[in-house]
Amino acid sequence: MAQRIDPWTSTEIADYKRLMEEFGIESMEKYRKRYAELVYIRRGIIFGHRDFAKISECMEKSKKYAMMTGMMPSGRFHIGHKMVADEIIWFQKKKADIFICAADIESFLMRSTPLEDARRIAVEEYLTNYIALGLDPEKVNFWFQSDYNSDYYKLCDMAAREVTFNELKAIYGELTTGKIISSLKQAGDILHPQLEAYGGTRPVVVPVGTDQDPHIRLTIDIASRLKEFKLIPPAATYHKLMKGLQGGKMSSSRPESIISLSGDPKQESRKVMSAKTGGRTTIEEQRKLGGIPEDCVVYEFYVYHLMPDDSLLESTFKDCRNGRLTCGECKKNCAELLEKFLTEHQKKRLDSRKKAEKLLKRK
Amino acid sequence: MAQRIDPWTSTEIADYKRLMEEFGIESMEKYRKRYAELVYIRRGIIFGHRDFAKISECMEKSKKYAMMTGMMPSGRFHIGHKMVADEIIWFQKKKADIFICAADIESFLMRSTPLEDARRIAVEEYLTNYIALGLDPEKVNFWFQSDYNSDYYKLCDMAAREVTFNELKAIYGELTTGKIISSLKQAGDILHPQLEAYGGTRPVVVPVGTDQDPHIRLTIDIASRLKEFKLIPPAATYHKLMKGLQGGKMSSSRPESIISLSGDPKQESRKVMSAKTGGRTTIEEQRKLGGIPEDCVVYEFYVYHLMPDDSLLESTFKDCRNGRLTCGECKKNCAELLEKFLTEHQKKRLDSRKKAEKLLKRK
Repeated sequence: MAQRIDPWTSTEIADYKRLMEEFGIESMEKYRKRYAELVYIRRGIIFGHRDFAKISECMEKSKKYAMMTGMMPSGRFHIGHKMVADEIIWFQKKKADIFICAADIESFLMRSTPLEDARRIAVEEYLTNYIALGLDPEKVNFWFQSDYNSDYYKLCDMAAREVTFNELKAIYGELTTGKIISSLKQAGDILHPQLEAYGGTRPVVVPVGTDQDPHIRLTIDIASRLKEFKLIPPAATYHKLMKGLQGGKMSSSRPESIISLSGDPKQESRKVMSAKTGGRTTIEEQRKLGGIPEDCVVYEFYVYHLMPDDSLLESTFKDCRNGRLTCGECKKNCAELLEKFLTEHQKKRLDSRKKAEKLLKRK
Repeated sequence: MAQRIDPWTSTEIADYKRLMEEFGIESMEKYRKRYAELVYIRRGIIFGHRDFAKISECMEKSKKYAMMTGMMPSGRFHIGHKMVADEIIWFQKKKADIFICAADIESFLMRSTPLEDARRIAVEEYLTNYIALGLDPEKVNFWFQSDYNSDYYKLCDMAAREVTFNELKAIYGELTTGKIISSLKQAGDILHPQLEAYGGTRPVVVPVGTDQDPHIRLTIDIASRLKEFKLIPPAATYHKLMKGLQGGKMSSSRPESIISLSGDPKQESRKVMSAKTGGRTTIEEQRKLGGIPEDCVVYEFYVYHLMPDDSLLESTFKDCRNGRLTCGECKKNCAELLEKFLTEHQKKRLDSRKKAEKLLKRK
């Protein structure tokens, strides 16, 4: 049986190549040079896409397009989320209309998060950090699923006619009432930027991890079937996900697995010292055999966030592989870089919080 | 296996008593005298209820309560719909807050009615006739499912957590995505009058035919489980349904089965002349054996709509049973009464149409 990707249960998906073959995600290879400015594209972290040619064309020819993304406001904003923030900010610089959804209904249905908590978390954790990282709040459409207008809801509801039960089961596995509502809301979230009131028909790109691909596939089907609206099926980019500090999934529900972007810089960066590395059992062995950066959480921090300079990253890689760099030194270096970043970030957060509140009131 | 009642497929349900036993609907018997002013209660057409004691108490003690009803705006408003209109108007006189929903999303999902058509039908057919029949449009909350505010949608969506798949299957039989969305919308329609913005927690009564009981049962469960809101489970009254002109179900999709309240009085009332009666094969036989009013569509017209005077109704019943009244005379009498009513009604519609439009613009 084919592997199922399910946004609500999947943990770690190592074999990206196989995923691409099974689910028809295309390679980003041909865009790596053209959009090398974004570190995640340059380094192959954004490894796949659907229909990105459409989006690339809009960028190159200054045509109208939009980027849509969502957040599940049920935990702390951590270093793993920073990548999505950076992608949003990049698309904003590339002139996309930016749509950000706080999926408080999904969070309520799937995790029983009270709506008020979701609201607080969306502002304090997500929006504030997005803005501190560089998002321009003046040019953002931000909404809570529970607090949007009827055009949007109409679209979510009408989508229900276009998808059969068996299709939903094939995409999501065992169904619950909550899963069905959540998946139709996702489709509405992704498609509604194309309604008249939100800018009209135009390409929309959704940057996601592979676990969100089921929503993308469902939405593509709905867009092509729902003739009552003029909808272009969404495009998507797919990124790999950072591992948690001890390996495995990075998750807000296990604070030891994450670096919080809202927490104390010293305390947070200290966690790096006990991260899982690609090191050997003893220093002697490591000097002899070298480390394994491909299997090292600390090295991932460099790749994703802390070493934008490619030549520095390359020399670090080599130093690890040939045993010159020990894990002790390397973790210390990583913790320092991280603390520096987090300290700067905290300063930016002070002002960002107010801007985030303002963004909510604008609606 | 127990009989299933399903709002989307059930046709005629003859055995009301058995239904009451199987589904726990209580008898209206004890209220027949107290509320004899409403012909449908007096004559046992409204035969059952859930929790009507709560509503009766509100009426007697002048406490706040609400009445909620919906319409499926996909066809012509016919004589069968008049009963619901009369019930709404009666509840309005009994000081209920009136909530009327045009279920355009359900109509789209289950019958593919375009939303614009639903809007036109709701105004031209339903609202205009409601007002012509006596509804005071100044004291009505009227909405389209597709055009309501987020408080309402929030409630519909959050309800999804409170009901399992197997419960939905037990209530509605084979499920479709559209049925699930429609049933949750129904729950939202019935419960939202209790939200702060719509008057707050108070008893709500829903007058329905038995085919709608699945929605009532679902909504009762949701109300008692959804602790995020303070909701009293809805009360309901159950009415029998008039048969179509040729017997069987009265349905807008078969114009020969209905009397339209918006059509030409002469043309519509003429249809009575070919109605299915409880008469015998020949006049001779009828004079000898008498007719069967219990099995006569024409007699139903008298009971439901055309003979509010009980003693006149009784003498007509007797005249039929003892063979004094032939079907020919009786149909002619019925057609005349009907034409008179429809002619009066058409006059009232002229002004009502404008009021209906205004009701929509008020939102």
